[in-house]
Amino acid sequence: MEQNPLVIFMPSGRRARVATGTPLLDAAREMGVEIESICGGKLTCGKCRVLVEHGRFEKHGILSDGGHLSAESSEERQLLDRKKSEANARLSCVACVTDDVLIEVPPESRAQKQIIRKHATDRVIELDPAVRQVYVELESAELGEHRGDWGRLQAALKEQWNLDVPHIDINTLRDLQKNIRKGKWAVTVSLWHDREVIEVRPAYDEGIYGLAVDIGSTTVAGYLCNLQTGEVVATESVMNPQITYGEDLMSRVSYAMMHDDGTKKMHGAIIKSLNRLIADAARQAEISVSQIVDAVFVGNTTMIHLLLGIDPSELGGAPFALANRDSMDIKARDLKLKLNPAAYVHIMPAEAGHVGADNVAALLAEEPYQQDETILMVDVGTNAEITLGNQAWMLSASSPTGPAFEGAQIAYGMRAAPGAIERVRIDPTTFEGKFRVIGEEKWSQEWNFATDAPLDEQTQHRAAGICGSGIIEAVAELFRVGIITGDGRFRDDLPTDRVTFDGPRGSYVLATAEQTTNGEPILVTQDDVRNIQLGKAALYAGCKLLMNRAGITSVDRVVLAGAFGSYIDPQYAMLLGLFPDCELSCVNAVGNAAGDGARIALLNHHKRDEAQRVAHWITYVETAVDPSFQDEFVGAIHIPHKTDEFPHLKGLLPDVESAELPTRRRRRRR
Amino acid sequence: MEQNPLVIFMPSGRRARVATGTPLLDAAREMGVEIESICGGKLTCGKCRVLVEHGRFEKHGILSDGGHLSAESSEERQLLDRKKSEANARLSCVACVTDDVLIEVPPESRAQKQIIRKHATDRVIELDPAVRQVYVELESAELGEHRGDWGRLQAALKEQWNLDVPHIDINTLRDLQKNIRKGKWAVTVSLWHDREVIEVRPAYDEGIYGLAVDIGSTTVAGYLCNLQTGEVVATESVMNPQITYGEDLMSRVSYAMMHDDGTKKMHGAIIKSLNRLIADAARQAEISVSQIVDAVFVGNTTMIHLLLGIDPSELGGAPFALANRDSMDIKARDLKLKLNPAAYVHIMPAEAGHVGADNVAALLAEEPYQQDETILMVDVGTNAEITLGNQAWMLSASSPTGPAFEGAQIAYGMRAAPGAIERVRIDPTTFEGKFRVIGEEKWSQEWNFATDAPLDEQTQHRAAGICGSGIIEAVAELFRVGIITGDGRFRDDLPTDRVTFDGPRGSYVLATAEQTTNGEPILVTQDDVRNIQLGKAALYAGCKLLMNRAGITSVDRVVLAGAFGSYIDPQYAMLLGLFPDCELSCVNAVGNAAGDGARIALLNHHKRDEAQRVAHWITYVETAVDPSFQDEFVGAIHIPHKTDEFPHLKGLLPDVESAELPTRRRRRRR
Repeated sequence: MEQNPLVIFMPSGRRARVATGTPLLDAAREMGVEIESICGGKLTCGKCRVLVEHGRFEKHGILSDGGHLSAESSEERQLLDRKKSEANARLSCVACVTDDVLIEVPPESRAQKQIIRKHATDRVIELDPAVRQVYVELESAELGEHRGDWGRLQAALKEQWNLDVPHIDINTLRDLQKNIRKGKWAVTVSLWHDREVIEVRPAYDEGIYGLAVDIGSTTVAGYLCNLQTGEVVATESVMNPQITYGEDLMSRVSYAMMHDDGTKKMHGAIIKSLNRLIADAARQAEISVSQIVDAVFVGNTTMIHLLLGIDPSELGGAPFALANRDSMDIKARDLKLKLNPAAYVHIMPAEAGHVGADNVAALLAEEPYQQDETILMVDVGTNAEITLGNQAWMLSASSPTGPAFEGAQIAYGMRAAPGAIERVRIDPTTFEGKFRVIGEEKWSQEWNFATDAPLDEQTQHRAAGICGSGIIEAVAELFRVGIITGDGRFRDDLPTDRVTFDGPRGSYVLATAEQTTNGEPILVTQDDVRNIQLGKAALYAGCKLLMNRAGITSVDRVVLAGAFGSYIDPQYAMLLGLFPDCELSCVNAVGNAAGDGARIALLNHHKRDEAQRVAHWITYVETAVDPSFQDEFVGAIHIPHKTDEFPHLKGLLPDVESAELPTRRRRRRR
Repeated sequence: MEQNPLVIFMPSGRRARVATGTPLLDAAREMGVEIESICGGKLTCGKCRVLVEHGRFEKHGILSDGGHLSAESSEERQLLDRKKSEANARLSCVACVTDDVLIEVPPESRAQKQIIRKHATDRVIELDPAVRQVYVELESAELGEHRGDWGRLQAALKEQWNLDVPHIDINTLRDLQKNIRKGKWAVTVSLWHDREVIEVRPAYDEGIYGLAVDIGSTTVAGYLCNLQTGEVVATESVMNPQITYGEDLMSRVSYAMMHDDGTKKMHGAIIKSLNRLIADAARQAEISVSQIVDAVFVGNTTMIHLLLGIDPSELGGAPFALANRDSMDIKARDLKLKLNPAAYVHIMPAEAGHVGADNVAALLAEEPYQQDETILMVDVGTNAEITLGNQAWMLSASSPTGPAFEGAQIAYGMRAAPGAIERVRIDPTTFEGKFRVIGEEKWSQEWNFATDAPLDEQTQHRAAGICGSGIIEAVAELFRVGIITGDGRFRDDLPTDRVTFDGPRGSYVLATAEQTTNGEPILVTQDDVRNIQLGKAALYAGCKLLMNRAGITSVDRVVLAGAFGSYIDPQYAMLLGLFPDCELSCVNAVGNAAGDGARIALLNHHKRDEAQRVAHWITYVETAVDPSFQDEFVGAIHIPHKTDEFPHLKGLLPDVESAELPTRRRRRRR
C-alpha cells in the first residue's frame, strides 16, 4: 500500500507522514513545529512563509523531487511578491502536501516563546478568601448511633464553628471515612464559601493555595497564592497556545466560525496549557496540585468563552452577544482543570461583548470607582478597552485599534520575542537611526559580531522584526525628526539614503541588511505609518468619546494597563496622540492590572461581589453606534491632530509640521 | 520470547492469553466467561467448580498436556470431595494458570442471566417531578444592550414565570446561544428544582424523562418514566455485575477490604451496567438518553456506597458507620452516568448502617407511617430489613438471616435462574416428592424427555439446583409431612428410600439422578435444614424484638417486600415461622416496593423530602446490642417454635411434632 507523504521541517528536523492534502501549517502544528500565523489562513499576513527544498528525497530507490505541494494560486504569489519573497517561498497556510516534501522554516516565520515580563505586583489585599480551613473534632461512630460520618462532621461544624454547611463534594465524600479515621476523629476541613466541604484532611493539616490567572490572547499569566498569607508563592507564564489558530482575537473567532471543531480545539489547547501552568507553579512552590483549592480566571470575552468551551462566534459580529455576562462558579473538573478535584473556579464578570473580565479585574486592581480624581484607563490590544470616571460615574468603551500595536499588520512586524526591535532613536540632523532589540542590552550602533571579541561582548541577536513598542517609537521618532509629516507622509526632500520611495510611498530603513537575521533590511513603510495612524486615531477617538459623553475636556490621570502599556514610552505614546494630553508625571503604567485584579478576587471573596456590582454599574458606551465616533476618529488621524491639545509635549513637537508635501505623483508598483 | 499461557473455556470456546499465576476465575471474568462465585474466593461455596481437560494442546510442535494449573491445596480438595466432585475438578477461584490450559465450565457453575420478574406496579403518584419544562420567549440581543444570553433567559424566566433561577449548568451554557438562535429567541427550558437550568431546547419542544433505579445485590431494576405523564415507558433489568466479586453483600465488602482497587472495580462495574441499562431503556422507549433529565437511585447501603465509589469497608464491622446517611443530589456526570450531561441523580437516604435507601423507598411506597393499622414489613435478603409501626410510631431493624434464603449456603443451592427448583410438594403418605423448575411449566412427574414427542411437549430444563423459594418449600414440606421434626432432624424410621443417612445427618432426595442436569441427585441435606432454621430464627427474632419493643403481641398486616417475598408462598413461610402469625389474607407480597418508592420519589420531589423525614423519624433498633435478641433467636430455632403462636396454620401443622427422635448414634463421616 502507498504510504502517506513524508514531511520534514528544517531546522528542527521534525518529520512525520501526513494525509495528502494537509496544509503545511496544520502539519507543522501536529508535529509541534511552531510557525507564525497572524491572520489564521486568510491570506493577508504572509507571516507563515516557508521555503520549499527540492531534490532531496530518495523514494522507491530513485532520488526524487522533494517539493511536492499543491499549486500556487495567484493570490498567494501576489502576497509573496509583495513581501519580496524567494522563488521557492510558499505560504504554509494554503500550500498543501501532495507528496514527500522538505520544508525550511526561516527565522522570521518561527513562532518563538514569548519573553514574559509579567510579574505579580506586591499589593496589600485584605485576606478573606472564598475557601478557608477549619479544624474540628468529631464524635466517634458508636453502635446504636446512626448518623453517617458526614452527619457527624456537619454536627461538629455546627457545634464548634456555628456553621451550617449543607454540601460536601462527592470526591471529598469518597475519602471522608478514611481521612476521619486516619485523623483519629479530628480533621482539617476546607470550606468553599462556608457552604460546601471541598477537602477533608486527617488531623491538623493547614496549607491551602489558590491560583489567579489572566488569560491574554498572547500570554497566560498565573499567580499561585498562599490563601493563608496572601503571598504569591509562584508566578508562571505560558504562551497562549491558541496563537497557532490565529494571532488576534478576530482570527480565533473566525477559526471557530469556519471549523466545526474550532471551539473544541482552542478550548482543549488552553486547558492543556493551563494544566501545565498549574503543574509548573505547584512544582515551583513545592506543593501538590491538590492543595490548590480555589482559582479565579479573567480574560477578554473571547478568551473566557474559549476557556469555558463556548463557541465565541456571536462575538464576531454585532450585536456581540455574550453567552453570559455575569460571574460564575464552576467545578474545575468540569473544565478538566487539574486542581484539587473538588475545587471551584471563579470566572469574573464582563461588562459587554468586547469589554471582558480582564477589564473588570483591572478596575478592581486600580479602583478608579473609589477615587475623587477622574482617571482614564486604557488597555491596548487589538481592541483597546477604555474606562473613564471616578467614584461618581464610570464609562467604558472598546475601540477597534487593530493589531498594529501588537506588531501585526506591520511590514516587518513581529511579536515581542528575542530579536524584535523595541526601542528606536533617530538623529534629527543626520536622520541615521539606532535601535535596541529584545534580548540584547546594547543599542545597534554598539553591536559587535566579531568572533574574536570576548564572549560577553559579542552581540547575540540581530534584528528579526519590529514589535509593538518599537513601531510606536519608530513612527514617533520619524515624526519628531521630520521624516514624516503630521498627515503621515514621508518627505522626499531630505538628504538621507535612509528614506526610499516606491512611487509616492516612502519607507525608512530602520535596520540595514547586515543588522538583520535574514540579511534583508528592515523598513518602516508608508503602510506601517498608516496602520499606526488608524490605530491611534481609534484609541484617541474612543477616549474623546467618553470624555465628551462625560462632558470633560481633560483627565486627572492616565493609567496604562496591560503589557503594552508597560513597554511603550508614555512620551512617545502622547507624541503620537494615543490618548489625550495629560501631565506626563500623571501617566502611569500599571503592568498587568487584570492579573492583579484576579489575585485580589482570589484573596478576598467580597471583591468578587464588588466586581459584579462594578460590572453592572459602569456604563458601557457602544462606540460603533455613537455618531460622534467617526468625527473624532477622522479628526485624530493626524499626528498630533491638534498641536495645542498637547501643551505638555510642546518641546518635543517638530517644527516641520506644516512643511510642504511632495506633490509629484510617482508610478505605483505593479 | 515466551508467550503468556493460553486459556480456553468450553463450551463457549473463548480463548485468551493471560499472565502466569492468574486465577482461573479472574481469567474467566476478563474473557467474559461467567462462572458462579458466591463466596468470592474464600473457599467456602465451591460454586466455581470447573473441569480441567488434558492432552489437547499442540505446543512447540509437540502435543502437550493442557492441564497446567497450580497445585491443589488440601482445603481445595476437601471442599471438592465434600461436593462429590470429579477427579479433574478444580475451584476456579484458587486454581492459577501455569501454562496452556483447557477448561470445561459445567452447567451448574455457569452464572446465567437471572430471570427478572420485577415489574413496575401501576400506582397513582401525584406528579410533581424535580425537573420540569417551561417555554419562554426572549428579547433578542441588540447592539447597545449588554446582558448576556443567560441574563436574557433569566429575565424571561422572571417575567414570564416569576422564577428567579440563579444557575445554569456549564454544559447547557455551552450550547445556549446556538439553541436560542435556532429557536428564534424562543426556547423550552428544563429546570431542576426551579433553581438550575439543565437543558435548553430550541423553540417549543416538550418531552422529558426520568429514571428510577433499584440497585439490588443481585438485580438492578430500572424504570424509565415520562416525567410529564408519569407513565413507565420502559422497564429494564440487568444482573448486578458485582456478583463476580462476591454473591452476597459481605463478600463484596470483604472484596473491597482485601483489594486496594476493589471499590474502584465494583464501582466501575455497576456504572458500566447502569449505562447499558440506561441505553437499553432509552432504546426501548425510542428516546435519546439526553432526554433523561433526572434519576433516583435506591439500594442497600453497600450498593449505594459502591454506586458512589465509596469504600464500603466501614459497613463490614461494628459500628457500621455510613459515609452519609442523608439524601444527596449529584451530577450524573460525576458518577460517569450517561444521562443528559447536566442531569442530577438523587440518592435516597438510609436509616442506619444496614437499613438503606431501598428500605426507605419501600416505606415511601407502602406508607405504613400513614396508616392506622400496625404493619410489619419484611424484606428478606442476606440481611432482612424489618420495619414495624403505624402513623404514630415506626421501628426498624436489620437481622442477619444469612444467604440461605437466596439459595446460598445450601448444598444444591443456586440463584433463581432456569433449572432452579422453586416449588416443592411431598406426598404425606408415600413421601415421594415432586417439584417445578424455573423455565418449565410442568411439575417434575409430568416431564417428558422423549425426543419423538411433539416439540411443545418436550421438557426443556432438568433440575440444576434449588433456589431460595424452593428450599423454603422443601423444608416446610419436609416438616409438614413429618420427614423432619420440629427441631429440624430427619426421622430415620420412615418407609421411604428418599431419606438417606450419613451418620446422624439425614438428607432427602428431592430430584433423582435422571431429573438433573449433571446426572447426580439433588438433595436437601441436614445442613440445609439447619441453615434455613438459623435464617428464619433470625428473621423471626428480629420481628419479635420490634414487637416487644413496641409492646404488642400481634400485627394487623404483614407486608412481604422484595423479590423473595413475591416468590415464596406465604403459607409455607408462616409454617416455617419466618414471621409472626397473622391472618393469611393479611399477608401481602408487594413485589419490588423499593423500586416503586424510587419511582414515587422520581415523579414527586416532595416525596424526597418525605423520605428524608421518615428516615430520620423512624427508630432504628440495633439487634446486635439488644439483650433480648439472642433469647428470641434461640427460642425461634424450632419449627414452629410454639405451635399455639400460629393459630392461622392449625390445619397445616403436622401431627408428628412430638414424635420420638432416633436416639441411636451413627458413626460420623470422615
